[in-house]
Parts: sequence; C-alpha cells; structure tokens
Amino acid sequence: MSDNMKYDVIIVGAGVFGMATAFYLKQTDRALNVMVIDREGGAGEGNTCKSAAGIRNTFSSPENVILTNTSINKFEDIEKKGFGLNIKMCGYLWLMTDDKFKKSQDAIYAMKENGVDFSVLFAEELRAIPGLNIDNYSSDECQMMGLSRIKSGLLGKKCGSIDPGAIVSYYENEFKKLGGITKFNTKVESLILEPEEKLDIPGEPLVWQEPKIAGVRTTNGEFYAKTTIIAAGVWAKELLDPIGLDAHIKPKKRQLFQVKGSSLEPLIKNCPGFNDLNMLPFTIIQKAGIYIKAEPREECIYVGCADNIGRAFNFDCEPERDYYENSILPVLVEVFPQFKNARLESMIAGSYAYNTIDKNPYIFKPMRDLVIVSGDSGSGIMKCDAVGRIATALYWGEEYAILYPNVPFKVSKLGVETRDVTFERFVI
Amino acid sequence: MSDNMKYDVIIVGAGVFGMATAFYLKQTDRALNVMVIDREGGAGEGNTCKSAAGIRNTFSSPENVILTNTSINKFEDIEKKGFGLNIKMCGYLWLMTDDKFKKSQDAIYAMKENGVDFSVLFAEELRAIPGLNIDNYSSDECQMMGLSRIKSGLLGKKCGSIDPGAIVSYYENEFKKLGGITKFNTKVESLILEPEEKLDIPGEPLVWQEPKIAGVRTTNGEFYAKTTIIAAGVWAKELLDPIGLDAHIKPKKRQLFQVKGSSLEPLIKNCPGFNDLNMLPFTIIQKAGIYIKAEPREECIYVGCADNIGRAFNFDCEPERDYYENSILPVLVEVFPQFKNARLESMIAGSYAYNTIDKNPYIFKPMRDLVIVSGDSGSGIMKCDAVGRIATALYWGEEYAILYPNVPFKVSKLGVETRDVTFERFVI
Repeated sequence: MSDNMKYDVIIVGAGVFGMATAFYLKQTDRALNVMVIDREGGAGEGNTCKSAAGIRNTFSSPENVILTNTSINKFEDIEKKGFGLNIKMCGYLWLMTDDKFKKSQDAIYAMKENGVDFSVLFAEELRAIPGLNIDNYSSDECQMMGLSRIKSGLLGKKCGSIDPGAIVSYYENEFKKLGGITKFNTKVESLILEPEEKLDIPGEPLVWQEPKIAGVRTTNGEFYAKTTIIAAGVWAKELLDPIGLDAHIKPKKRQLFQVKGSSLEPLIKNCPGFNDLNMLPFTIIQKAGIYIKAEPREECIYVGCADNIGRAFNFDCEPERDYYENSILPVLVEVFPQFKNARLESMIAGSYAYNTIDKNPYIFKPMRDLVIVSGDSGSGIMKCDAVGRIATALYWGEEYAILYPNVPFKVSKLGVETRDVTFERFVI
Repeated sequence: MSDNMKYDVIIVGAGVFGMATAFYLKQTDRALNVMVIDREGGAGEGNTCKSAAGIRNTFSSPENVILTNTSINKFEDIEKKGFGLNIKMCGYLWLMTDDKFKKSQDAIYAMKENGVDFSVLFAEELRAIPGLNIDNYSSDECQMMGLSRIKSGLLGKKCGSIDPGAIVSYYENEFKKLGGITKFNTKVESLILEPEEKLDIPGEPLVWQEPKIAGVRTTNGEFYAKTTIIAAGVWAKELLDPIGLDAHIKPKKRQLFQVKGSSLEPLIKNCPGFNDLNMLPFTIIQKAGIYIKAEPREECIYVGCADNIGRAFNFDCEPERDYYENSILPVLVEVFPQFKNARLESMIAGSYAYNTIDKNPYIFKPMRDLVIVSGDSGSGIMKCDAVGRIATALYWGEEYAILYPNVPFKVSKLGVETRDVTFERFVI
C-alpha cells in the first residue's frame, strides 16, 4: 500500500495546528510537496471539534497575547472576506469573589501591561445578567461548597467564540487550492527512525550513526518525507516517547455538556449590555473552573469545567454524566438558578494537550528533519493562525515569523533550549 | 496492616534525594515525625546504586553549578570527619574534536562565568594517557563512524566520583540517629487524594471540594501524613499522573558495563599528570556520549553511554550486551585500543529521571500538603546535599535554603510557576 515517492513534508495531524501549518507551508512555496495524514475521516475531527472553541486575548503571558491577538485578527479578516467562521465576539467574563480578584491581581496587571482590552465591572453592573445570583450565598450548601458572593467581573473585549470545524475547513480548502494533499483514515503508528547510511546491523541507528526521520509508518503503509512535522496534539507523545523525544504535553480529559431549556433562553438571547449580540459572554463562574458558553445557533448552553488536581493525565475520552450532576451542577445552580430546570441534552469529551511547564505552545526542531508543534494547553484554536506561521518559519529556518497582519515574532522563543516565554497564569 | 497514626511527613523514596531530604527535615526539627518508605529492601537500592556516580561542578547552568559545588564541598567534609564515601577527585575529562570544541564554546564560556575550575588541554598534553589514540582516525571504520582526531581536552578539576551507596548510608544513619523511621519492602501504590471534608459522594474530591493528600496507599496498608514528599525518581510519574500533577521527568534507560583486563591496568593506576591518584579522569570520549570511569578498588573500568535520540522513554531496565558490542565498543576501541583485549564482566541498567525542559531539578509544592523533589536528570547524586536542603526549606516555607557551608539559594528558582533557571548545555 506504500507509495514510494518522497514528500517534501509530511504533517501528522489534520487538527487546527496541522492544517494551519500545512497551508502556510504551501503558501510560502507552492512547489513544496506537502501531505497531511490523519487517522480520522476528515480534518479537525479529533480533539479540534470537541473544543469549547472560545477565543480570547486575555492572557498574562505576552507571548500568548501576541499569538491570540494576531490569530483573532486573521479570523475576523477571513470572515470579512466571505468565509463564515461563526465568530461571536460576545466577550469573556470572569465572575470574581473578593479572594479570587486579589489572587488574580498580578495576572490582571500583566494583561494591562500586555495591552489587553478589558474592563473591571462592579457587582452592580452584573445585575443585568438574567438570573445571576450576586450575593445570596448564605445557605448551608453554599458554605459547604465554599461559594461566596460575587464582588466584581472581569470582561475581556476581544473575546468570544468561533466554529472550530469552520476554521479548520478554511485552512484545508486553501491548502488544497494550492495543491496540498490530505490522507485521512490513516493512523500514523510510528516514526521511521533510521541512520543516514544504513548498514543492516541490528539496533540501528547505533549511537555513532547520524539518526534521521525518514517518514512515518501508518495503517496504510509507509510514507517517506524529507521533513516530518508532528502536530498530533495529545497523540504526539505516543509517537515521540519511543524515540526519546518529549512533546512537553500531558493528555487531560475535558468534557462539554450541552444543556437546553426555556429557562436558559434569556441568557442566550436577552442579556443586554455586554456585547452587540445581546447574549451572555463566555462566562467563567467564581468557583471550581466552571464555565458556560451560550450558543444561539443551537439554542443551548455548553457547560465545561477546567478541573485541576484530581483529573488524571490519561487518554480517557468517556464523558461522565455523574461528573456533570455531582461536580458541576450543584455549583452552577447556586450561581445561575435557571439551570435547575434545564436538561442535559448531550455530552462529549476530548483531550487537552496540556503544557504543564509554562502553558505556552512548544514549536521546535529537535532534529534536522523533524518539527514538533505542540502544547496548545486548551487554547490551540485561538492561536492556530500564529502557530501555523511560526512552524512554517521554523521549517524555513527563519529567525522571525510574520504574524497577521505584520507582526514579527521570534521563532526561538517557543523552542526548548532557547525558550523565552512567561508562565501563563490565566488558564481556564 | 495499617498503622493509624498520622506522621508529620512521609517521604516516598529512599534514594539519595529522599534520604537527604529526610535527614535535613529531622535536623531542622527533631520533633518532626518523619517516615521514609521504599519498595526496595534498603536505602539507595533503586536507581541510586545503579549510577556511574560521577561528581562534577562543570555545568553551564549557574544553578547546577551552585547545587553541585556545595554538595561536593559537603561530601568532602563528611569524609574528612571520618565517614568514608570513596571520593576520588580524579577530574572529568572531555576529549574534543575541533567541531565539538566549537559547538561547546558557549557552554565553556558559561562555565567560566560561573567560576568553574577547569583547564583546556592541547592534544600534546593528552599523550600522557596510556594508549589514547589522538590522531590516527583515517581508517574506513573511523570514517564510517564519523570519528575524527582529538584536538583538545577539557579538564574539570572539582570532579571525580563517589560511592553512591555510602552517601545514601550517611544520610540514612544521621536520619536514624535523630529518630527518623524507614519502612522498606513497601511499595507505594497511590497517593490518597481526598476532600478536606468527606461527604461520601462518589467521585470525591469533587471540583468544588478542597483537595488534600492524606497519605499513601502501599502494599503494606495505608499510611497517613500531614505532608507527603515525593522523591521517587522515575516512579514519581506513576504516582502523580493519576492525580493530574506533572513530575516533569521522563524515564530513560542508562546502562553501565563493567570491563576488566590487564590491558586496562595502566588507565586504572598508571595514568600520571591529571590527578594525585595516578588514574584516568572520568573521561567522555569525542563521539556518541560514551564515557569511561576507572575504578581502582574493583580493578575495572565502567563504560556508559549518554545516548539521545533513539533511546525510548520507558521503564525498561534490561541491560543489553548487543548495545555494548555494536554501539559502544566499535567506537571505544578506536579511541582506546586496549579495550580490544578486555572482557565484559558484568552489566547493569537503571533509569534516569530526565528533565527534558531545562535539565535542572524541580522542587515544588503544588498543594499545601505535597512536595515534589524531582528532575535529577542523571546528576542527582552530585546535587543531593543541596536538593535535600532546598526541599527542607520549601517544606518550612523559607524563601532561601542555606547550602553548605553557608550559601543562600532562592527556593522558588526550582519551582514551576516561579521557575528561574538556565537551560543546561553540559549534560552527559
């Protein structure tokens, strides 16, 4: 089943990082022979499509701010030019207790320094949100759950959501227009690690041989390339551990619960004052990392939770109804009582590829013929345009990538040995 | 089998990090109830005793220089006071080709800046080494293996080796003199993660509950502690992945081959000019990360190899004769032809706990009752005294640890969010 030709580049993973990289590679040199391989039946069908797909530039790391700002600008330009991405600039709203606000001070100052457009709202200004419980937290249940009154809100302006499938499709279409090749339903099982000159000694490459990555072994045979790019998200680990390279990510389950009911309608389409869409911003409640995202098109609200300690690092992708009912719902109904009468319609689970080190992406070239694009940390979609450009610049050996529309970014900042990023404190 | 008492501190792992930490904890407060648990039958019987146990201060990261300098000073003091550690200050010698020397320039400047005592030797000065092939690399074999002539040597002075079992015993003895408890043949199977207040709801701790580490589940029952310290080397990952915390290490097999033969004797006891011991320094040859360490007491040479790409991250601990014969020996006999007539006497394999991020230790406190001591990266023994003191300072909430004899070190430098270390370029 193998084809014997040698591609210039094989990209493993047709998610949002892989497809953006594929497009920018072809755009810089149309003659480049690029193939994207994915085990799913189409682009973005892995974890990309399981994302809450929020977009925001509210980060404390200046690097994350540049990556998201430029990507969001590009998304808006794509839509302006007629390719629908279902962008909803509804804002991001953090509901804050006194304690949470104090703990976030440093991160908030950092955002201010980074030029992020946000405002701090008083509790009074939050009363416009239908049903929101601002200060009635004296019940035994609330005490037990450590819930307390909302004292302020932090509203990020250049924030909202996007259709993750649409943005992947955009890059895929553009890539294909330029002659790019995709190969789906093809699982990459391992990288082909070989010596530059084979001698047929067992155990090659031996330590004195120059190692190279010749391509990939897949469920549909072997494919050869001059350069292999790993953009496989959480699965990068499975490909890289066997050759002793670190993708610098941990896989972590994240779930999305789709909730419907007439009691939720005001949040979805009658919540004035925060954006032009009359909808609730993407809202992070004051406890336990629980967030809600209104989706007018589907007339529902998606509920998620950025849990931390206690959530194992593994590849488990089973959504758990118990988790919604025991962990999320008891808190949620205290803050938004209208969820009491809403029904859980469906649920999905995917995996974050978590960079636990500094929560910025890793884009590096550990071998002459291998590029690794990794570490999305749950904010990959909103950075994908910048990431695709940086991976492309790295491929070409450029010192700087030019992010949209014309923002230089030093490629080595996201490398390993040369790493120069700030720890991100504003992770959801 | 459980005992119901609650320890002040349980330390998981009686290796060199765990025992040094145990001792310094007891030394700072003798009333502290500290128990060290290990699955092996005694202290240092895991990967500690499988180490080549070189000690050196030749690092490019200033943090690694401080950690090793102060630890080596302490080792010398311990021996001076009568506890034998079999310290041999034989030096560390890097044999360098032109190319390798050029590539090491930055790291060498960094060492100089860090005040490391080393000298650069000309090839002529290396002729004193019995049998060393300086410039005869024109054969086809040498060409094939990419071997070329030695142009210089880099000799680190405050370097040598130590008995890893002895240094662990020192800390264990001192710890026990102060009333510390060890529990061997007891494997820690998991950490006990609980909510602060249990409610007997399935799935606890739920996301709105305050999580805590109550102690450990072992093959000999549960043990409870106010604070749990993980110093389990590569096995830390097995304990931390299930609760979603990252030890920031990758396990990687490293092997030691014990080689004997009369042809090696001059290297072991008749190699003048590099140290007072008339022995070959711990020597890293010019290719493939291969190193050799003379051991006069056992009249042998230990051979190892710091292989890189191609060596999987996993827990495999089987030594491979093929690896010695095909990967190491062909190179070694070109540089030291006397290995041709030597015999492989025995071999062992252990695991490095590799920090692939910056190759400095990680010492951090991700929860109020959990401390992680990790990231030895193959240079744990030579840093253990400093690491034990820093972990102790972190336990007590001190801003600075005082390293031997009186060197302050900012504890937060080795943390995660506050990390402030330099990427280490001089790894073997």
